[in-house]
Amino acid sequence: MRIDILTVLPEMLGSPLGCSILKRAQNKGLAEIVVHNLRDYTTNKHRKVDDYPFGGEAGMVMQIEPIDRAISLLKSQRNYDEVIFTTPDGETFNQSMANSLSMLDNIIILCGHYKGIDYRIREHLITKEITIGDYVLTGGELPAAIIADAIVRLIPGAIGDEQSALSDSFQDNLLAPPVYTRPAEYNGWRVPDILLSGHQARIDEWKHEQALDRTRRLRPDLLK
Amino acid sequence: MRIDILTVLPEMLGSPLGCSILKRAQNKGLAEIVVHNLRDYTTNKHRKVDDYPFGGEAGMVMQIEPIDRAISLLKSQRNYDEVIFTTPDGETFNQSMANSLSMLDNIIILCGHYKGIDYRIREHLITKEITIGDYVLTGGELPAAIIADAIVRLIPGAIGDEQSALSDSFQDNLLAPPVYTRPAEYNGWRVPDILLSGHQARIDEWKHEQALDRTRRLRPDLLK
Repeated sequence: MRIDILTVLPEMLGSPLGCSILKRAQNKGLAEIVVHNLRDYTTNKHRKVDDYPFGGEAGMVMQIEPIDRAISLLKSQRNYDEVIFTTPDGETFNQSMANSLSMLDNIIILCGHYKGIDYRIREHLITKEITIGDYVLTGGELPAAIIADAIVRLIPGAIGDEQSALSDSFQDNLLAPPVYTRPAEYNGWRVPDILLSGHQARIDEWKHEQALDRTRRLRPDLLK
Repeated sequence: MRIDILTVLPEMLGSPLGCSILKRAQNKGLAEIVVHNLRDYTTNKHRKVDDYPFGGEAGMVMQIEPIDRAISLLKSQRNYDEVIFTTPDGETFNQSMANSLSMLDNIIILCGHYKGIDYRIREHLITKEITIGDYVLTGGELPAAIIADAIVRLIPGAIGDEQSALSDSFQDNLLAPPVYTRPAEYNGWRVPDILLSGHQARIDEWKHEQALDRTRRLRPDLLK
């Protein structure tokens, strides 16, 4: 799949997109992630992408023109399944949305910044508005990295051990059970005996019970 | 405030912590963010931080020892208000939690990676477990950057125009109203007339109505 990210702060995305799973998935040809600097799509000599809001709000607003030019150019080159905007009032991102997005061919993610973007962009150019949670951030760059990370790791072959993704939290609507590794005792704190017993069937049963119990206690909403 | 981030992938945090508001807040002395490589706290010659899980789960698990050593060393140097672990089954991060955390002096954020961390770390060393949303990521590095960004921008002086943070979405349990900037007409798409009218009282009333209406329609849960 191909992900185009439009931003006024391309340098913020350098290390998140160039590390770990996202780097490996790109090197393997499973995902292509292209970051575009919106200032490259301005026509004024100061490469200005924002202006004062109408109606006297504090803060600056990102202008339509560079964003429209960037999106139009990309759309002239290939078909896009979604043009996504990350905003606190969008639809809440979750694992099932990550699963759906991971099956698309081409998506654009527009990162907001400053006080917001001209609302006409949202009305006319954006096809899907997503929030990664109920909190306000400096800009949409980290949310774009989060979305890219969550969906690219679901592409078959992106993570080494596919079993590992299938047993993650949320994939079966259950939180993951506790995990432990060596040493079996540290500082007087012991690993549960059952995990050292060697009885795989009983261990699997214990894990399922723990997953259920943790979900009931911590996130009963997931079981509804 | 001081934020210590413990990770096996310090390079992933370079650009998010070194840009924009987080960079400026650090340069102004408002926030100190220190990233620690957990491999520096290992005692084995391969600097290994993970091992196979007990009980035959797929994936690798982060070991107690390097994490305990890192946290103990930091705690011997200053008092920490919270030792935070980012995990999909933690308490959901939101703006009110960001407000509270932004008033603390020193916090540690431990980034999970691989299949998870040895559960004894969570039972004995962590004071607060946070999830930034119901989705699975490669690791806790991006969530740590999100938390740092959300709380540091609330420290007085971190963003240029404090009014701008106060009128953000969620600060008053309302979504922000639409914003517009020049040109007043683009591609036939016009800015609402009221915003061009110059009647500030009516504009403010319109904005409040829009905020209420958008919240009722998109996020009625915020009004409860």
